[in-house]
Amino acid sequence: MKRKETAAGKGTSRKRRASDNTYFVIMAGGKGERFWPQSTGLVPKPFVSITGKKTLIELTVERARRIVPLDHIFVVLGREHLPAAKKCLPRLSHGNFIIEPIGRDTAPCVGLAAMMLYGRDPDAVMVVLPSDHYVPDSTAFSRCIRETVKVARRGNHLVTIGVPPARPETGYGYIKTGRKISAPRDADCFEVARYVEKPNLPKARRYLRDGNYFWNAGIFVWRARVLLEGLKYHMPDLHSGLLRFQKALAAGDKDTADAIFARLPRLSIDYGLMEKAKNVLMLPAPFTWDDVGTWTSLLRVLPRDTTGNVLRGKTFSIDTTNCVILTDATPVATLGVSDLVIVASKNGILICNASRAQDVRQIAKALGKK
Amino acid sequence: MKRKETAAGKGTSRKRRASDNTYFVIMAGGKGERFWPQSTGLVPKPFVSITGKKTLIELTVERARRIVPLDHIFVVLGREHLPAAKKCLPRLSHGNFIIEPIGRDTAPCVGLAAMMLYGRDPDAVMVVLPSDHYVPDSTAFSRCIRETVKVARRGNHLVTIGVPPARPETGYGYIKTGRKISAPRDADCFEVARYVEKPNLPKARRYLRDGNYFWNAGIFVWRARVLLEGLKYHMPDLHSGLLRFQKALAAGDKDTADAIFARLPRLSIDYGLMEKAKNVLMLPAPFTWDDVGTWTSLLRVLPRDTTGNVLRGKTFSIDTTNCVILTDATPVATLGVSDLVIVASKNGILICNASRAQDVRQIAKALGKK
Repeated sequence: MKRKETAAGKGTSRKRRASDNTYFVIMAGGKGERFWPQSTGLVPKPFVSITGKKTLIELTVERARRIVPLDHIFVVLGREHLPAAKKCLPRLSHGNFIIEPIGRDTAPCVGLAAMMLYGRDPDAVMVVLPSDHYVPDSTAFSRCIRETVKVARRGNHLVTIGVPPARPETGYGYIKTGRKISAPRDADCFEVARYVEKPNLPKARRYLRDGNYFWNAGIFVWRARVLLEGLKYHMPDLHSGLLRFQKALAAGDKDTADAIFARLPRLSIDYGLMEKAKNVLMLPAPFTWDDVGTWTSLLRVLPRDTTGNVLRGKTFSIDTTNCVILTDATPVATLGVSDLVIVASKNGILICNASRAQDVRQIAKALGKK
Repeated sequence: MKRKETAAGKGTSRKRRASDNTYFVIMAGGKGERFWPQSTGLVPKPFVSITGKKTLIELTVERARRIVPLDHIFVVLGREHLPAAKKCLPRLSHGNFIIEPIGRDTAPCVGLAAMMLYGRDPDAVMVVLPSDHYVPDSTAFSRCIRETVKVARRGNHLVTIGVPPARPETGYGYIKTGRKISAPRDADCFEVARYVEKPNLPKARRYLRDGNYFWNAGIFVWRARVLLEGLKYHMPDLHSGLLRFQKALAAGDKDTADAIFARLPRLSIDYGLMEKAKNVLMLPAPFTWDDVGTWTSLLRVLPRDTTGNVLRGKTFSIDTTNCVILTDATPVATLGVSDLVIVASKNGILICNASRAQDVRQIAKALGKK
């Protein structure tokens, strides 16, 4: 395997060698609707502190930083989110922010990053991560990513990481594994039998018992070249569109480039490529993972007090159970309530039944219009 | 009956004549605990906007102002509440605030005001009102007070106004009426058979059916002289204490005066005098009345929206029923909740089960100590 020394490689010499052609592509963005009032259109979920003091994207970059030098970490995002992102990540160079002219789901986002990286380094291995997930064990995460990079580097596979289900979750897509292909002393590695849509509860219960179903966490590792070949074969419109986009950008014709990007197929990389490709492998995640999809998910991922509440900021509770209570500044007092999400920020105050946290987007949409 | 023209009488000549020796004594104060976060120790319930834009004491003074000129309206309160009171009532002269050195319940408060008024006008008729009750129909209230003043002026009675019960309320004391003594064309007027403590629910139901039980609204009308005679007979310690208090004040010895006041018996005028006196009469109130004892009482007294909520300020609600939601400035959004009291102010944010509003004082106490 060819190794290239780049001027950018910093850190220990061992890390430099292992990470020389490994790059992280962190997908940031979203509408900031389900985490109102903390997140808003201009400051969506990755850029706010949801699980602790640090923002989710800061935590994601910190995890990546254990594996590669900072200048191997790229963040793909919309132009409108650049100020929020730079505020969270002041040490990341301007060149490491890849601007999408417009959000067209993950396939164009990943394709754009792959072309850019392939141009820079034809042997680039990309680790694609969502920017707003919760992974408390960075050490286990690093070990798993390194193993996955090894698998991606030595073959022509699209590799993904599947999370062993911890409960019969109906809110996630699943990956059904096929034949185990790893060598005896290597990390477990499976062929992928098929991708499965979000199941109903009986199916989710069956998947949990079955042992061959994993949560699709949206984490991908592949050589940029392999990804581009996959796109060329399975999504030729996207592939040719991205080539034209790059050509227009290179010619300095930003308006044309933007117009081309805006017409790219709006598809997720899962639906557009992973479900169709035959060269997909999956490694099981040996780490705890949560997509922190709603405020209520904090009841799963954050430590609770003795009465089952997740509290942050100045709170005072009497006879209060199973609540998420977060406040930026103003004290919040609760009395005789349960199963509520209460979030107070300068943007607004949310009081929501814990079972209705998915619908917070309705509030954000309505208030956004006002 | 003797009529005295005082220099203070302003307003129409008809009003002046009717009100020349009528004075309102409005009792303000309290700890501000049940209306946290709007009310606090320094700004208790009478001085905050609970039922609308105006504070409860402003509304009380406005009702009194329909009957007497402004300089016949006195407010009794603790020194610590003077700034809040003056802010609410900028047109009231400094001399119309009667300062209690320390709160010793209503008997010393009323006695203090009676001595002061008797010194000013031996024929003074006092209308004693709590400062923080809800009386939406000012016209019916005025008519009733005028009738009651007539009764008090022509005899030697301690007159009170009883509210016909609207529900089997267990949170109020009751007055049981005896013989009806009014002349055929006069307003109804009853002797009082006895005062009744807050009943349990079966008793409250019986009182509601009975027709001879009325809520004790804490509204009293009497000649200052008659009240002082009653105190001298039934509460001689209070009466002599108040005389010594006045003497010390007149001698400019404020410290001695304060010490005397602090040792006055701590008793309500109901318990100390009304329950014992034989010369008590009661007129039924022909107006709606509520003591607005807790946030939840707003569900009774304020108009509700189509889904049964009482809303004030910037609120946005989805699937929200039977809630009180008040906010000073920050928008409050609710989703899938019911039977809650939600109040947001610069002091704090309260989320309280509607059935637990009595216990809000626990929060105010605990946060006050911090």
